[in-house]
Amino acid sequence: MYTIVNLLENMGQALRIPTSFVVIEFIGTFAFALSGIRLASAKQFDVFGAWIVGMATAIGGGTLRDLMLGLRPFWMTNSSYFICCAVAVLWVMLFRKYMVRQNNAWFIFDTIGLALFNVIGIEKTLNLGLPAWTAITMGGVTGAGGGIIRDVLINEVPLIFRKEIYAMACVAGGLIYVAGGELGMGPNANAFLSSLTVIIIRILAVKHHWHLPVVKGE
Amino acid sequence: MYTIVNLLENMGQALRIPTSFVVIEFIGTFAFALSGIRLASAKQFDVFGAWIVGMATAIGGGTLRDLMLGLRPFWMTNSSYFICCAVAVLWVMLFRKYMVRQNNAWFIFDTIGLALFNVIGIEKTLNLGLPAWTAITMGGVTGAGGGIIRDVLINEVPLIFRKEIYAMACVAGGLIYVAGGELGMGPNANAFLSSLTVIIIRILAVKHHWHLPVVKGE
Amino acid sequence: MYTIVNLLENMGQALRIPTSFVVIEFIGTFAFALSGIRLASAKQFDVFGAWIVGMATAIGGGTLRDLMLGLRPFWMTNSSYFICCAVAVLWVMLFRKYMVRQNNAWFIFDTIGLALFNVIGIEKTLNLGLPAWTAITMGGVTGAGGGIIRDVLINEVPLIFRKEIYAMACVAGGLIYVAGGELGMGPNANAFLSSLTVIIIRILAVKHHWHLPVVKGE
Repeated sequence: MYTIVNLLENMGQALRIPTSFVVIEFIGTFAFALSGIRLASAKQFDVFGAWIVGMATAIGGGTLRDLMLGLRPFWMTNSSYFICCAVAVLWVMLFRKYMVRQNNAWFIFDTIGLALFNVIGIEKTLNLGLPAWTAITMGGVTGAGGGIIRDVLINEVPLIFRKEIYAMACVAGGLIYVAGGELGMGPNANAFLSSLTVIIIRILAVKHHWHLPVVKGE
Repeated sequence: MYTIVNLLENMGQALRIPTSFVVIEFIGTFAFALSGIRLASAKQFDVFGAWIVGMATAIGGGTLRDLMLGLRPFWMTNSSYFICCAVAVLWVMLFRKYMVRQNNAWFIFDTIGLALFNVIGIEKTLNLGLPAWTAITMGGVTGAGGGIIRDVLINEVPLIFRKEIYAMACVAGGLIYVAGGELGMGPNANAFLSSLTVIIIRILAVKHHWHLPVVKGE
Repeated sequence: MYTIVNLLENMGQALRIPTSFVVIEFIGTFAFALSGIRLASAKQFDVFGAWIVGMATAIGGGTLRDLMLGLRPFWMTNSSYFICCAVAVLWVMLFRKYMVRQNNAWFIFDTIGLALFNVIGIEKTLNLGLPAWTAITMGGVTGAGGGIIRDVLINEVPLIFRKEIYAMACVAGGLIYVAGGELGMGPNANAFLSSLTVIIIRILAVKHHWHLPVVKGE
């Protein structure tokens, strides 16, 4: 069985015995929520609206994945995601003057979260016996879905459709995961290499201003 | 078992033996649909588009709740919601000159609907054995989800993220429901007190222009 | 049992033994995807964003239907939809100068797709034992849902709420399907007559600039 998912499904226990994965997931959730809350604050949302947009960003992709996979949304039996997003709202309210200076750190955490959420989506899908390409898709839905929902809620054209190598990094990581599996590698090694792929691609993409070609209009 | 849900699930029979709950649910659905149809008419939607937006407002929150809970959407076996929304379209077309004058009445009915939908969401979730905070969340999804979907469909930033004490009133009502349960009160008393809380908070919030603090931008 | 759905569910086999239905579904999917990709290109989306919007347009309605019906989304075990949408992205990139000239052809293919998707939604719903009016609704969700999701993603007010006889054509086709069933006609004849109804209504509506009345604002 795939280990990250098992670990996280037992997050109740896991929280008492913190592992690196749980810490990473919390940081990733926090970074995702921050991106939603910051955009919400730019639109003058109130604290409750900002919290909802933060949650939609952080857990929206995983919720969409679980609905499509016929599973109960992962957050329904674990309140730590909601608390994490509430802390993120407080963070933005308290440290808003320092947020810009923290940008590099949050970019890294957001990217680590993306890599982890991608692997979680892949593993949950493979655990159901679905095809590898469906798993890669659901990895992308988990990683990029929240950002799309966030942008729909704040009434903007989704950023990832135009500017960033984001979902594309998920797909690359997904291909590595699946290729590793075909080559007989274990799930831990797959998860690690896949995550590394997502992180490296996204960092390189931002650093070197990589863009996918735009589809030219008529 | 929780009584409102049982009553409404048997609404087929109930419609032949109208109870106050069925009447309240119809009025709430009608008021929710009206809010969608009026905004749709401000955007020059055609009758069919207005009907769809009215339905999305009235049954969208409950549909989202049912999908997340793994249940069949409640309206699939009961056509009265669709008919209610169609009547609401006719109402706006016939009485549009008098709508502004009716504003206070519709505000009250909308608030009563909010309170009832909140309780329905809470009870449906508790009936599945999910935690109390999940039930409060799903109450909010039931009550406020339709308005968010409405605003996404008419391409506006959701109103409840910026202006109104709306989802917050649901949460307060949800806390009362759960607290009542902890104190050993029966579901009928819980439902009544919870609804009353939602109604009073929303009326006071609108009357006294209460707002949650805005999350300031950077 | 209803034959189109059976045929398409076995599309894996069917692709090896192509039938007219499979060809029609491919053309319809392609035409739906094209409409999304062209609008995405007008908004300067990159290739990946255009692909996602194309897929959301082509398979979004059916996905929403399957989620509401409690079924696994139809595309999860059949990669041909994704490939079809990728080909559509290439098509727009290669032939963008000729797209306007192809408009009439794509309008016809889009309309044929609408008619087919409508019947698929109706039959899938009836197969679950749900009421006829629910089936008509789910036909409309299948046919028109993708276009609504598309417009939400590109941050526009959904076109079908204001301009086109689109969902309305689905409803008319649905009524014919159900009426045929009541009159004892077989599912093949129903599917054919229902599709023909959708196609004729939509062509006439566009040709003669039919519009539904607008709901006047206050």
